[in-house]
Amino acid sequence: MINVVLLGTGNVATHLFEAFSASEKIAVRQVYNHAEGSLSQFKSKTKTTTNLKELFDADVFVLALKDDVIPEIAAQLQHKKELVVHTSGTVSLDALGKCRRSGVFYPLQTFSKNQPVKSKIPFCLEAKHRKDLELLKELAGGISGKAYEISSEQRRKLHLAAVFVCNFVNHMYALGEELCTKNNVPFEILQPLIRETAKKVESSSPFEVQTGPAIRTDESTINAHLELLPTQQQKEIYQLLTNAIQSSHGKKL
Amino acid sequence: MINVVLLGTGNVATHLFEAFSASEKIAVRQVYNHAEGSLSQFKSKTKTTTNLKELFDADVFVLALKDDVIPEIAAQLQHKKELVVHTSGTVSLDALGKCRRSGVFYPLQTFSKNQPVKSKIPFCLEAKHRKDLELLKELAGGISGKAYEISSEQRRKLHLAAVFVCNFVNHMYALGEELCTKNNVPFEILQPLIRETAKKVESSSPFEVQTGPAIRTDESTINAHLELLPTQQQKEIYQLLTNAIQSSHGKKL
Repeated sequence: MINVVLLGTGNVATHLFEAFSASEKIAVRQVYNHAEGSLSQFKSKTKTTTNLKELFDADVFVLALKDDVIPEIAAQLQHKKELVVHTSGTVSLDALGKCRRSGVFYPLQTFSKNQPVKSKIPFCLEAKHRKDLELLKELAGGISGKAYEISSEQRRKLHLAAVFVCNFVNHMYALGEELCTKNNVPFEILQPLIRETAKKVESSSPFEVQTGPAIRTDESTINAHLELLPTQQQKEIYQLLTNAIQSSHGKKL
Repeated sequence: MINVVLLGTGNVATHLFEAFSASEKIAVRQVYNHAEGSLSQFKSKTKTTTNLKELFDADVFVLALKDDVIPEIAAQLQHKKELVVHTSGTVSLDALGKCRRSGVFYPLQTFSKNQPVKSKIPFCLEAKHRKDLELLKELAGGISGKAYEISSEQRRKLHLAAVFVCNFVNHMYALGEELCTKNNVPFEILQPLIRETAKKVESSSPFEVQTGPAIRTDESTINAHLELLPTQQQKEIYQLLTNAIQSSHGKKL
């Protein structure tokens, strides 16, 4: 059994809490937050506290906190002899600097409150001491996650990659939704295409399966599309991404 | 039984041929192409021809051809008393102008040769005569497609929306892949995130589930990401999409 004390009550903390609680190999002994209010959802399920001095003992202290408060909270845990990890994509391992045993437990997934995650979660793991990596692998394995050893430098690049394949992709969906709504077409009509586009890159390199007017250098369609777009910013996005596809595939601009 | 003559041998033609052939309600009586070579894959399965004067009779002539040749091929079919349709997202119904009965049978999906489509295909249907719309609905239904009545004007906007949610999304995946490859991380690590991001918009509006540094106006992460990106063009894409997310959500720039 791995005993966990969870610090934080946001999206990542909430999803980790649910996953840990559902596992037979992990027990969440306590949840910490500086503000009482956001602890209420956890009160019926485990112990809670707003006082860092009252943290229980645990095998792992998981700091699922906003990036900028991680160093100050970690500083207050530096006397602990157990493992202290954070869950951030961008904060380096060094931010836990004075903790004797430190590590990173970063779930590379998008979380929304009240939406259960339907896919297996990859965890990017890092630890100051080799043997703590094994403990983190056990923790990831206990919630059916897939473990990857990833350095702080690699993790920063992965977090950036995640912005492209998740946040920016979602904005492309939002632009598609807007075009549907304004033309009295249900957005659901685009969903099979969205699904298929995502599925395709499970078995193929996205670079190699690029399709569309840009890679075909189909100028008449590109010009017609630029004309159809209602805002200057949308035209700029279309033009820039068209150029980017063409230049990455060695087409003349 | 709906008898079809299929004109064209590209990705759309090939996928339609497979789907029609697998249906008990549809028979592909003949495939036409102007060049003999690309007909070879069909020869063991149905009749073929390179001569428009030798087309068989059929209930529907399906022109799955490049946009710019549709009008000239249609002009040569204008004596037909049966339905003539094209499969293009951008060409208007009028391009089949002199055909007595004309329509559009546009599959809103991405097709790659040798990759079977795993999702249900939405068909955007349009017809000069009301009763031909029923025939096209039957044709779509025969291959388990979902039928939508869509005007030429709506279809052009949908085709544009498809560029955003498919072609541009795929380029975002390619950028993510490049970041992985350059940092010795397997691209598979991003796939659960890609899948989850696509799944999320099946039950939620993408506008409403936007996440990431842009919508949080997390300037320090945004600046760190801009610094990490290796090319000027990638920085421009990051900055423009960040601005677009912020302005669409009413954030100050």
